[in-house]
Amino acid sequence: MSQLKTSRRAFLKHTSVAAAAVAALGACDTRDAMPKQQGSAAPGPSPATGGTMGPHDTGTGASMSPSDQMDAMHEKGVKAFPAKTSLYGNRLLTPKVVGGVKVYDLTAKVVQWETEPGKFVTGWTYNGVVPGPQIRVREGDRVRVVLKNELPESTALHFHGLEVPNDQDGVPFVTQPPIKPGQSYTYEFVVPNPGSHMYHSHHNAAKQVGLGLLGAFIVEPKAKTAYDDVDVDYVMILNDGAHGYTLNGKSFPATEPVVAKKGQTLRIRYMNEGMMIHPMHLHGMHMTVIAKDGWPVPAPWKCDTINIAPGERWDVIVRCTNPGTWAFHCHILPHAESDHGMFGMVTALVVA
Amino acid sequence: MSQLKTSRRAFLKHTSVAAAAVAALGACDTRDAMPKQQGSAAPGPSPATGGTMGPHDTGTGASMSPSDQMDAMHEKGVKAFPAKTSLYGNRLLTPKVVGGVKVYDLTAKVVQWETEPGKFVTGWTYNGVVPGPQIRVREGDRVRVVLKNELPESTALHFHGLEVPNDQDGVPFVTQPPIKPGQSYTYEFVVPNPGSHMYHSHHNAAKQVGLGLLGAFIVEPKAKTAYDDVDVDYVMILNDGAHGYTLNGKSFPATEPVVAKKGQTLRIRYMNEGMMIHPMHLHGMHMTVIAKDGWPVPAPWKCDTINIAPGERWDVIVRCTNPGTWAFHCHILPHAESDHGMFGMVTALVVA
Amino acid sequence: MSQLKTSRRAFLKHTSVAAAAVAALGACDTRDAMPKQQGSAAPGPSPATGGTMGPHDTGTGASMSPSDQMDAMHEKGVKAFPAKTSLYGNRLLTPKVVGGVKVYDLTAKVVQWETEPGKFVTGWTYNGVVPGPQIRVREGDRVRVVLKNELPESTALHFHGLEVPNDQDGVPFVTQPPIKPGQSYTYEFVVPNPGSHMYHSHHNAAKQVGLGLLGAFIVEPKAKTAYDDVDVDYVMILNDGAHGYTLNGKSFPATEPVVAKKGQTLRIRYMNEGMMIHPMHLHGMHMTVIAKDGWPVPAPWKCDTINIAPGERWDVIVRCTNPGTWAFHCHILPHAESDHGMFGMVTALVVA
Repeated sequence: MSQLKTSRRAFLKHTSVAAAAVAALGACDTRDAMPKQQGSAAPGPSPATGGTMGPHDTGTGASMSPSDQMDAMHEKGVKAFPAKTSLYGNRLLTPKVVGGVKVYDLTAKVVQWETEPGKFVTGWTYNGVVPGPQIRVREGDRVRVVLKNELPESTALHFHGLEVPNDQDGVPFVTQPPIKPGQSYTYEFVVPNPGSHMYHSHHNAAKQVGLGLLGAFIVEPKAKTAYDDVDVDYVMILNDGAHGYTLNGKSFPATEPVVAKKGQTLRIRYMNEGMMIHPMHLHGMHMTVIAKDGWPVPAPWKCDTINIAPGERWDVIVRCTNPGTWAFHCHILPHAESDHGMFGMVTALVVA
Repeated sequence: MSQLKTSRRAFLKHTSVAAAAVAALGACDTRDAMPKQQGSAAPGPSPATGGTMGPHDTGTGASMSPSDQMDAMHEKGVKAFPAKTSLYGNRLLTPKVVGGVKVYDLTAKVVQWETEPGKFVTGWTYNGVVPGPQIRVREGDRVRVVLKNELPESTALHFHGLEVPNDQDGVPFVTQPPIKPGQSYTYEFVVPNPGSHMYHSHHNAAKQVGLGLLGAFIVEPKAKTAYDDVDVDYVMILNDGAHGYTLNGKSFPATEPVVAKKGQTLRIRYMNEGMMIHPMHLHGMHMTVIAKDGWPVPAPWKCDTINIAPGERWDVIVRCTNPGTWAFHCHILPHAESDHGMFGMVTALVVA
Repeated sequence: MSQLKTSRRAFLKHTSVAAAAVAALGACDTRDAMPKQQGSAAPGPSPATGGTMGPHDTGTGASMSPSDQMDAMHEKGVKAFPAKTSLYGNRLLTPKVVGGVKVYDLTAKVVQWETEPGKFVTGWTYNGVVPGPQIRVREGDRVRVVLKNELPESTALHFHGLEVPNDQDGVPFVTQPPIKPGQSYTYEFVVPNPGSHMYHSHHNAAKQVGLGLLGAFIVEPKAKTAYDDVDVDYVMILNDGAHGYTLNGKSFPATEPVVAKKGQTLRIRYMNEGMMIHPMHLHGMHMTVIAKDGWPVPAPWKCDTINIAPGERWDVIVRCTNPGTWAFHCHILPHAESDHGMFGMVTALVVA
C-alpha cells in the first residue's frame, strides 16, 4: 500500500501525474482579464501555460459584465487550486516504540490555522495541525497515547470506534476525570478492532471538536483483505464548524487533490467530524462502498454520491479508469459553490 | 414498460383509475361550509360528489371554531388535489435522430414558473419547464445535447452520474469554459452506464440548480432486469430551494398523484436536487430498494421511509397490492404540513 | 425475551447491575466543590460515594477558574444521571381482550410534561405521557384502538409502517374525517406486518407530533427469528421538536440508561419522530443492523454510529461483551453537549 502524501508539494513532485493534472486544470484557460482584487493574498500557483483556448472564449477587456465578473471569480478559484497554505494536518505520525509499545505524543494547543490562503482561524489542535496527525497502527498493537493539555480548558480524548476497555474511553466523569490545563494523561490499550476510526475530544466537544481537536485513527487488520493493498489510500475528514466547510482542515482552493494513476485502485476513508451531513459526490467514476465505521460491508454497493453523517466513517474503493481532473465535492451545493466561485468542500480527483 | 404520464389530464383520462381515485379522495367529504377566501385562485377540480359522510361530521355553520377553521383549510387542500397548473416538467423529450445520434436541444431560459395554482416563482429552466424535460436513452446510445444559453449569466451542463469522458463533464474552468449568455455548446458521448441519473447546471450551481436548471437523465440497461419492465415507471425529483418544497417542480396540492392499478408493479426513481435530506414515506405499502445512483443494490432491502440526500438517486419497487389513495410525503413534517394544511412535498399513490 | 423496564426505579432496583453502574458513574468523583447554583432544582440522586479519585484531581476551593467551573457543570450533569422525573412514557400498555380483539384505549390530551428535573413543557400526549404507551402485539392479532380526543383541536391516528386497509390509515380528508375535540374514533384491523412501527397524529402533524402525539407500535412476527428472543429489547424514540432534544421524551440527565448484563444480547429499536437526522453513536461496542422500518435487512451490517432520519426505524443488535458504563448519544454534538455539560440526546449503556 502506498500511503499517498497529497500535499501540494507532493502533488507537484509527482511530476508525471502533476503535469497532466496541471494541464487538465489549465485546459480551459481563457484570455479573460482577471478582475483586479486589491489586498488579495493570491498565493496560488503560477498560471498553467499549457492550456488551450475554450471554443467560446471571448475577450472582454476592462469593463466586464456581471456575468463575466462572476466567471472571472470562478476561474480565479479553480486556477488557484491547489493553493498552498502554511501547514497541513492528517500527516502520518511515527510513534516511538518503547518496550514493544507504540507511543504517540499529542499536545492539545491553540494555534492560528490557515484554512485557505490568508484566512486564519482559531484552531484548537493536536500538535498544531487540523486534523491532528494521522495515527495508523495494526490490530493487536499495544498503543500508548500521551496527551498534554496546553488548552485554556480541560479536555479528554475519545477513540471513536475503538472498542477499548471502559477506563480508556475518554469521557470525563464517566470513565475518567477531565484533563485539566497543564496536565498530561496517558491512554494505553491493545488495539481491539480494525478499520477507519477517529480520535477526538469528548469534553465540551461541540466546541472542542468544532475548533479542530480531531484526527484519524486507522487500524490495519491482522488478516488483510483485497482492499488493504490498494495503490492509494486516502483519508478525507469532513468538518463544518467554526472553520467553515473543510476537507482535512482546508477549504477550496486550498484543499488537496486526490491523485492516482490510470488503472490504480484508490481507497477513500470518509470521516465526518462536523454537525451536518455531507453527501460527497465524485465525478467521472463510481465508488464501491466496502466498510461502514471500520466494519466490512457484507454486500458492497456502488454509488457516486455517499451521504456521510456526523460520527460516521465510510470506506469506498474507486477504480481509476477514467483519466482527467474530476470535480469532487459535497452535493449540498451551498457547501461548495457561491456566485463568487467554488469554495469549501470541493477538491478534485486527478487520474493521469 | 408503460411510461406513465401523470399530469392531471392523464390522471383524469385514466377513467377507471381516476374514478376510484377521485371517489377515494372524496370519501370523507363533509358538509362543513368552506371558509370564504377572498381573492383565492381556487382552481382545483370541482368537488367529488360521490363521497360518503364521515361518522363524526358535524355541521358548523358560519361561526367556526379555530379547530374547525383549521380543518376546513386542511380539507380545502386535499380537495384541490391534484390542482391544475399551467405547465409540467419532467415530460419525455423525443430526440431528433441525426446519423444515428440522438440529438437533444435544450435552451436554458428564465420563465415565471407556477408551483401551485396562482403561485409563480422565477424559474431558470431547460426548455421552460421545471424539472427540465426527461431524457431517456439506452446504454450505448450516442447522444448529443445542444445547450443554448439564454440566461443572463454563464452556465454549463453536468451529467450527474454518467461516467462520460472528462471533456464532457461540464465543470467550467476544469473541463470546459463557461457557456456565456447567448452562446451554444454541444456535448456528445456514448452513454456509458445505465441507471437513474440527472443533468443539471454545474456553474454557480447553488443558485442555478436551486432555480430549476435540472432534469432526469434515465439510461435503460442493455441487459434488462426484472425491474426494467415494470407497469409504471415514475421519476420523482425533490427540490427545496427558491421554489419551496417541491416534487417535480410542484407543491401540494399541485403535485401529481402516482397512479397504478391493483396488482401492478411500480418503480419510483427518487432524485434529490435540493440542499436538504428528504425521507420520503409511503403509506400502505412498502418499497423494495433496488438501485443506488443507478447501480443495482446487491441485496435489495425493504422500507417505508427512504432518506434521500442531495445528489443521491434511489430506485425502489412497490408491489401495488393495497387499494386506496395513500398519502406519500416527506417525513420531515415541516416540509409537508402546517396548521394551514398539507403543502410542499406531499402527493398520493392511488392504487385502484 | 425480557422486556426491560429502565425507569430509574427499575434501574436502581436491579441492584447487581445498578451497583456497578453507579460505581462506574461515580468512579471519577472528585473533591471539587460544586459551584453554588441558586434556585437549582438539583433533584439528582445523592452522589455516589464509592468513587476513587482521578489521578489529576485538584482541589480548587471557592474561587474556581472558568475551566474548573465548566468541569463542575459537566460533573453535575453526569452525577445527576439518571435523574428522576415525575412520569415516563413508552411503558407497555396492556390491552383489554374483548371477543378475541386486543382493545387499546388512548386519550389524546394536554399535560405539562417534565423532560428533565423541574423543566416542564406543554405536552400533547396519548394517555398523559410522552412517548405514548407502547403497544406491542403479534402479527395476525386483531387490534382495536379507541382514540378519545380531549385536545383543543382535531386529530387523527396513523399507524406508521403498518400496511392496514386504506380506511384505517388515519389521514383526514383522505381516509377519514378529522376527529373533532370531544369525539372518539375507533380503528380496527388485523395486524398485517411485523416489525418496529409507530403510531402518531397525522393531522396538523408538524405541530401535534412535535408536541408529543406519538408512540411505538411493535409487532412480533409469527415466525420468530433469532433476534426475537433477545435478553433486552429496548425502544428508543428520538425527537427534536418543541420539547428539545429528547430520547423517549426525556433529556439528559433525565434519560433512562439502557442496562444489560455482560454476555447478554440487546436489541435497540430506534425510531425518529423528529424533524432532523440523528446519528446515534454507541461507545464500547458495535451494533449489527438487522431491520429497517420493521423489515429484516437481507445482509446485516455493523456500525457504531447509525444515522436515523425522520420517520425511519432501525433495529440493531448489540452483543454486550464490554463491561462498563458507555456514553451513548447523538453525534451531532450540539444535540448532546454544550459548555454547560451534556444535555439532550445522551444516555448510557450500562453493561455490568
